[in-house]
Order: sequence, then C-alpha cells, then structure tokens
Amino acid sequence: MKSAPTYTLGLDFGTLSVRALIVDVRDGRAVAEAVSEYAHGVMDSALPDGTSLPSRFALQHPRDYLDSMKAAIGEALAAAHTAEGITPDQITALGVDFTACTMLPVDEAGVPLCFDPAFCGEPHAYVKLWKHHGATEEAAEITALAAARGEEWLSAYGGTVSCEWMLPKVLETLRKAPAVFEATHRFTEAADWLSLLLTGRETHAAAFAGYKGLWYEGAYPSEAFLTALDPALGGLVGDKVAPAVDPVGERAGRLTEYGAALTGLPVGTPVALPMIDAHAALPATGMTRSGDLTLILGTSTCHILNSDRLRKIQGVCGYVKDGVIPSLYTYEAGQAAVGDCFDWFVKNCVPAGYTEAAKASGLGIHAYLSSLAEKKAPGESGVMALDWWNGNRSILMDQTLTGTIVGLTLATKPEDIYRALIEATAFGTRVIVEQMEQGGLPIVRIMAAGGIARKDPMMMQIYADVLNRPIEVSKASQTGALGSAIYAAVASGVYPSVTEAADRMAAEVERVYMPEAEAVEVYEEMFGKYKELYEYFGKR
Amino acid sequence: MKSAPTYTLGLDFGTLSVRALIVDVRDGRAVAEAVSEYAHGVMDSALPDGTSLPSRFALQHPRDYLDSMKAAIGEALAAAHTAEGITPDQITALGVDFTACTMLPVDEAGVPLCFDPAFCGEPHAYVKLWKHHGATEEAAEITALAAARGEEWLSAYGGTVSCEWMLPKVLETLRKAPAVFEATHRFTEAADWLSLLLTGRETHAAAFAGYKGLWYEGAYPSEAFLTALDPALGGLVGDKVAPAVDPVGERAGRLTEYGAALTGLPVGTPVALPMIDAHAALPATGMTRSGDLTLILGTSTCHILNSDRLRKIQGVCGYVKDGVIPSLYTYEAGQAAVGDCFDWFVKNCVPAGYTEAAKASGLGIHAYLSSLAEKKAPGESGVMALDWWNGNRSILMDQTLTGTIVGLTLATKPEDIYRALIEATAFGTRVIVEQMEQGGLPIVRIMAAGGIARKDPMMMQIYADVLNRPIEVSKASQTGALGSAIYAAVASGVYPSVTEAADRMAAEVERVYMPEAEAVEVYEEMFGKYKELYEYFGKR
Repeated sequence: MKSAPTYTLGLDFGTLSVRALIVDVRDGRAVAEAVSEYAHGVMDSALPDGTSLPSRFALQHPRDYLDSMKAAIGEALAAAHTAEGITPDQITALGVDFTACTMLPVDEAGVPLCFDPAFCGEPHAYVKLWKHHGATEEAAEITALAAARGEEWLSAYGGTVSCEWMLPKVLETLRKAPAVFEATHRFTEAADWLSLLLTGRETHAAAFAGYKGLWYEGAYPSEAFLTALDPALGGLVGDKVAPAVDPVGERAGRLTEYGAALTGLPVGTPVALPMIDAHAALPATGMTRSGDLTLILGTSTCHILNSDRLRKIQGVCGYVKDGVIPSLYTYEAGQAAVGDCFDWFVKNCVPAGYTEAAKASGLGIHAYLSSLAEKKAPGESGVMALDWWNGNRSILMDQTLTGTIVGLTLATKPEDIYRALIEATAFGTRVIVEQMEQGGLPIVRIMAAGGIARKDPMMMQIYADVLNRPIEVSKASQTGALGSAIYAAVASGVYPSVTEAADRMAAEVERVYMPEAEAVEVYEEMFGKYKELYEYFGKR
Repeated sequence: MKSAPTYTLGLDFGTLSVRALIVDVRDGRAVAEAVSEYAHGVMDSALPDGTSLPSRFALQHPRDYLDSMKAAIGEALAAAHTAEGITPDQITALGVDFTACTMLPVDEAGVPLCFDPAFCGEPHAYVKLWKHHGATEEAAEITALAAARGEEWLSAYGGTVSCEWMLPKVLETLRKAPAVFEATHRFTEAADWLSLLLTGRETHAAAFAGYKGLWYEGAYPSEAFLTALDPALGGLVGDKVAPAVDPVGERAGRLTEYGAALTGLPVGTPVALPMIDAHAALPATGMTRSGDLTLILGTSTCHILNSDRLRKIQGVCGYVKDGVIPSLYTYEAGQAAVGDCFDWFVKNCVPAGYTEAAKASGLGIHAYLSSLAEKKAPGESGVMALDWWNGNRSILMDQTLTGTIVGLTLATKPEDIYRALIEATAFGTRVIVEQMEQGGLPIVRIMAAGGIARKDPMMMQIYADVLNRPIEVSKASQTGALGSAIYAAVASGVYPSVTEAADRMAAEVERVYMPEAEAVEVYEEMFGKYKELYEYFGKR
C-alpha cells in the first residue's frame, strides 16, 4: 500500500441512472458521489424518432450510458476535489457494475447499430434492457428444444430459459429484425461494450456469460443445439458472440485515450472486469467467503451464495465458478416479486382512510402499514400468502404460478394482509435456504442488502424469526458502486484479492436481527402450512 | 271476497327497525308504508344503564319493538287515510315476520325479565338478537354431546349446532346468569312473544321451533339428552319452552283489547301466525310451490327450497314441514358472507383513487367496481376466490373455514378481485344447488330476492351463467312486509291458502336473467377449479 491516500472509483449502471462513487481504498469510506439519470430512461412505448414499441418492450439508448457516465464522474470528481482536494490522478482504478442481461448489437468497430442511420428507427438495434420481455415466445422455444434434446445445461438453469437472458433476445432479433441480426458483429452485454470503449479490449466477463448467456461449465450451448434452434444461429458463438470468457479478478485493461476522454481520468488507469450489479453487493457487504448468503432485497429478491463446493440443485437458477469471487462458485436463486408485491398491494388494496392516516402521521404508506402490522403477534391474524405475484423463480421455476391469500375473514385488516405478504416472502426465502442446504451447500452467514433491508426493521425481524438465524444488515446504502470500487482496488493492485479488499473496504454491519424464540415457534408451525400450500399450488 | 276493497297489514321486524306495509288484498298493491327504527338499535357494547357488554354480544330492548310497532302502524295508517281514505276497520288482518332466533326470557305474565328492576342491569335478561354470538362455547358443547350420543337430529341440522340458535342461548343464560334462568317462565322467540301480547295466546310457530329450536320431526331433543347436557335443563321443554308447536296457516288469534291498544287496530282483528323474516319472501315473490328455490341475497345468503319430498341432505342446515307453506317441506341452506364479503372488500381493499373516481362518476363504490369488472370477460383476470370470509355454512358446516384468493399477479386490479368474490358466491350457490338436486330435491325455478338482487345486474347475470339456469328477480322491494301481509290475507279468510293468496298478491317478476352460452362454458371450467379449491381447503 502506498503511504499517500489513494482512491478508486466505482460506477454502478442501474436501470434509470448511473452512480459514481469515489472511495478511500484504505477503509472504503465514501469520499464523494454523484448520480446522473439517463436522458431516455427506459424506452417502453416509443423510440426517440417516434417509432412506437410493442408491449413488453424495454429498450435503452447506449449514448445515455456514456453521457451519464461522464456527467456523474465529473460531478463526483468535482465534489471530491472540493471536499478533500482530490485530483483525478489520485483515482488509482475504475470498477464498473451493470444491470444484466442488458445487451446490444454492435458493428466491427464496437459502434452500436442504433447509431447507424439505417437502423435508428429499428427497435432491435437498441439496447434490450434486462427487463425487456419481448422474447417470451423465443424463450419458451429454447426451453422446449433443450428439454426435448436433454441438454444437460438446462437443469443447471433450473429447467427454464428466462426471456430476460441473452439467447432469447438474440433469437428475437433474428426472427423480428433479420437485417439487424445480419449486420451485427457482436451481441454484447452493455457492461462488456463499455469495457471495450474504455480499454480497447473486448471482454466477456464470466458472470454475464454464466448467469445470463447459458455459458455452463466452460461452454456455450453446442453448435448442434444452436443449429437445431435455427440454422442461422449455428455459428453464433465466435461469430456474433465473443467466444472467450474472462474470470473475475482479471483486469479488463487500462484506459485508452478514448477511454480517458470518456471518463476524464488519466490514460492508463486500470479498469476492473465489469460485474453484474447485484453481485457487487457481495464485496460491498463483506460477503466474500464460502457459506456467505446475501439477500438482495428490492423489487425482487436475489439470493447469492458463495461456496467452495459444486452442487447441482433443482431450482437454483444458476451458478458460476470465478463469477463473483475468484475460486468460489457463486449460486443464484430468486424470488420474482418482493418489493413489487408490496407495491402492488399499496397501489391496489389500501383504502383511502389508510392513505390519509399515513399522511397525517407523517409516515410513508409502507411504514404506516408496518406500524400497524407489528402490533400483532406472529400468526395472530390467521392470514397467509404465497408470494407468487410474478410467478415462482426458485425453486419451482414456473412463471405461470400466481399469488394466493388464505385465512381471510370479515375481521381481516389491510395490515394483516400486508404482514402476510412480508411473511410469505420470508417463507419463500426459507424454502430456498433449505433447498440450498439440503443440496449440500452449508450456509454460514446471511446478509440482507438493498433498500428494504435498511428501511423495514419489522420485515428483517420476521426474516430472522422465520429462518431462525441471525440476519445481518449492512450499513452500505450503495452496494453496487461500493462493490465496484472494491473490485477497482484489486485491479489497481492495492489488495491482492477481493476478499482482502472487502475485509478492509466493506461497509460495516449496521444491525443484526436475532431470532426470538416465541416467534420462531409460531413461524415453524406456519411454515408447515406454507409448505402445504406451496406443494398444493406449486406442483399440481 | 267482499266487494268493497279490503286491506291487510304486514309488519316486518328487522335488525334495526320495523316496517309496516298496508296492501290491497286483491292484488298485493302497496297502499302505504312506514318504518320506525328501534330506539336502542343493537346493543353490542353497553346496556341502557351503562353496564358494559362482552364482545360478540348483540342484544335488543323488547320495549323498542312495541314503541316502533305503534309508531310505524300509526304512520302507515295515517298515510293510507290521506292517500285513499282508508280507515283502521278496513284492515282485515295483521301479519308479522321477525328475525330469528331472536329470543328473550319472560315471566308468567309474559313480561320480559329485563323490565324487572332486579334484572335491568343483567345482559341475559334482555333480547338476544339472532346475531348474538355469546354462546359459541355452549354451541360447541351441544354439538359435541349430540355427536357423542349419536343424536339423529344432529345430522338433519348439518352436523353442527349454531351459536345463533335457541338452545345455546338458553344454556348460556343458565351458565352465565343462573338467577335469570331460574326466574324465567318461558324462553320465547320475540315473534311468539309479540303474538302473545297481541292475541293473549301463547304461540310457538313451527318455523322458529324447527329452524332455530332443534324441533325435529315433531319433537325437541329428548329429556335424556337435555339432562346429560345439564341436569338443570331436564325439564326445559314444557317448563321453560312451550311444548306445543303451531303449523303455518294457523291463525295466532285475534287482537285483544291490549293488542288493539298496542296496534291502534280494532279488537278482534285476526293475527296470522308469525313467520321468520326470510321466509316471508316466499309468498311475496310467488315462490310457494314444490321445486321453487328462493335466494335471499343480503349480508349473507339464505337458500330456501320448497319440496313435497322428504330428503335428508348433508349440509342443508334444516328443513321443516308446514314451516313456510302448508303441506310442503321447506329446506334451508346458507352462505355465511355475501354482501358482508363485498362490504369487507370495499372497506378494506379499495384504494383511494377508486373511491375518488366513484365519487366523481356519481356511482356508489359497489356500482363503480361493477362498472369496471363487467368490462372483462369471465375468467379473463385469472383471479378466483373461496367465499368463506365468515366460514362455510352449506354444505360444509364449518365456521372455522376462511376466505381464499388465488390467481393474483402484479397486473391484478381491485375490480378483478371484486368480480372474483361475486363469482365465488355464485360458485358457492351452485355447490348448494347441486347438493340439493343430487340429494333428490329437483329445482324448477330460481328466484333471487333481497336488495342486491335488484341492484347488481352483473352479479345476477353471473349467477345465471354459473348456474346455467334462468334467474328471476322479483319487483318486490319489501319482501318481508309483503309476505306478512299475504299471510294476513289468509288469516283474514279472503284466500283459502298461501299459494292462492300469493298467486294474486305476490310482486311481479321484474327481470329474468338468461344464461349466455359462452360465459356458461367458461364458468363450467372455472367451477371445476373452484371445486378443487373447495375440496382442498374445505375437507382437509
């Protein structure tokens, strides 16, 4: 370590904006940060030229990433200079995380096809955002073919190919916009495209390839499979998809002159390999060891488990070695609607009297409902739910499943249902935790991250009671950007490994929720009932 | 029939008020009506002297019935005089219907015990309204003992004794207020008590005894059973409960001087035997023949079927011969929460935006939700429910069952759930209809009565589609008072039978909802799913 203070910069490309965070590599302290929203946001009804979009489309404009990145970095650097006199040359490395699978077609020079006037009115030439759902039919077709052929990788992905992943999005382009497909040199994750612009080197980070690109145990789906899917896809890998994959811990490269111009940082600054946004939370919260399970609680929940063991587990949607932490396998599971489910409830099921009372009490509606719900004992209302408002990801992998509420009586209040929804997500997490452990992956620590984790103590206590384990909540408010800054610290050479960097730079634990014996007992019984409902509705 | 127009007066004692209706006996035309609310309403938190009441209590003050009756009759007579010059001597008979089991303890002179200063602070000395739920433990005890002893009558009442019935309410008094029990000369239905005051004759109408008093095939529970329940109950029948039972079609008697003073009608005016309020709807809507099924749709639904056959059917809660129509058996089934369920939804689950939009559109919230719901096709939303918000009466007879909603997604709107609740009540009715027919009781006509039937065309169409039968809706808005006036017409001797009186006096059919083939098909499939849920949640 140098004696003079040095800093790294983390860039977190989210759904609506990019955040730039400058941190002190000695302890991870945030020195300055800035956010810049994408000018075009999410394009779900029309392109910039007015071309209207089919429903379920969610596109982005690649120019926005560059404009917002420059603005956010500039603002963060200015703030860091004002606060502590920091200059750009003190930024020793840059790390990037990005939503995924957020992909776009580019030409041989790495220029997005949508920049070509010939394609600027063509939706498929733009970035397909992670939540673009235009390729549901293609995903079903891929799943069916893989099942029919008995492709081994299918079960590793839980038996279903999501319409949000790379191959369905590419197939959609082939089918709906063959000219775009034809003109494409590479289909690339936006994260890898950015690496290319910054460093001049084409990367294909293992996490993106593994979790979103069907890259399984060192290989993509076979040429035979792709040809069977569509003869035009036979040469996809190597032709239109970069064949090489980079393990985590590698450096993407160093800023070229072009990259330096894009960022305002010195030429030669090391750039870390890009990460998937959710994964950046692991170093940010210090969850870098085998047995560490991180729950990223947001609109949905992502359950990320590191392990030194390889196990194939039904309903655990993906695992990648060297995807997040070098030499460890990182497994992903998910619940498809968590915050989304609570938001649905608040939007559709909360009566006017509650809205007004929340306003009068100065609380948000979620906090107001929690304040009423937490006055009741576990199980008191008798209401229970299955949290499948957006299908069930883990462990059933069935998007057609729907939400259920049972135990309703004339005495049921809105807060009883709200609490039942929270409990349902906790029971759903317990199903996943048990599936992982029964599948041979022991869990040592559980960390809850994401906005909800810090905002809703009642929910965290319920999770501790339902899981009968301590639930840690990190102080980190910007897990993506901090995680990226930690990967940058490794790329800069300050630390020899992600684990060592995280041990110094991760945010502190803010609170540990301990299970309370009485509630644990009630929830144990309720979980039995939940499992009955789970089996009945989930496996008919 | 006399040549000069003659009239009868129907009195409908409801939960909160009494209605007096004067009708022309030639055609049932309403001449005048008036309503008078009970001064004490439903006492559920305190007695008039401030004595506070346990939860689940629902008492009434017997004085209110007399005061409100006099006021309502006086007002109706005055209106009839103003309108058509009608005088009290042209009222040829009086008919009464009452809620049930609404019972009270009286002394040897027929004076309610609560009028005795010694008992005016004693809750059990007052009227226990039909919905008084203080005797749940006693009801469970009676059910358990009857089951243990294999009492034959238990299965005729669907296997469960309701806490709303006479014997649990009496046992509650014995246990909780032995001094009241001791001082009681008779436990009587309020309806029969009123007959006694009006005519000087103690009646015990068959419908009350049969549906609410465990009077089954000509006998009450045996002395052996009552003694086993509690030695103090051994002599109950004959001692504290009138042993004789009056079949429908009998006259209660004629107005005494005291009765004339209470009503303002001439001494000697015939008084019909009192009826249970719901049953008065049968003559009022012309449903007096074998095979006629009347649905009384209100907070709950009562399904009343006349038949010339005797069949014992699981889950059909009671049947009485000569209870409603002379020489016919009348069977009752029920759904415990219908309007109550919709009201629960409106109160607890409708967001502020909907409340405001309803107001802006000038519609009530129910009508507004219907206006949105009816834009969708049957089954379109995927949402389904089990309507057990207040348990399941028919055919499972299980008060512990609760409501369930399935098929919820992030796209589910409040109107989708509202419609699913309506459909659930229709499916529940279909289960009852099928149970009756499979049990050997053919159904010829179905009539929907009660406020909801006339106010919600969407709901009636859904019922027609789900049942795949025409649903008739009567013009009658006050089925209780009109029915009582029809029984009075028989008591006056104008008509020889209830059927003949109803053929002339019943309200016309306002509308017939015919099943629509396309909807019938969708609902047929949905009913299969409903039955699966019914079996799963109802019979575990």
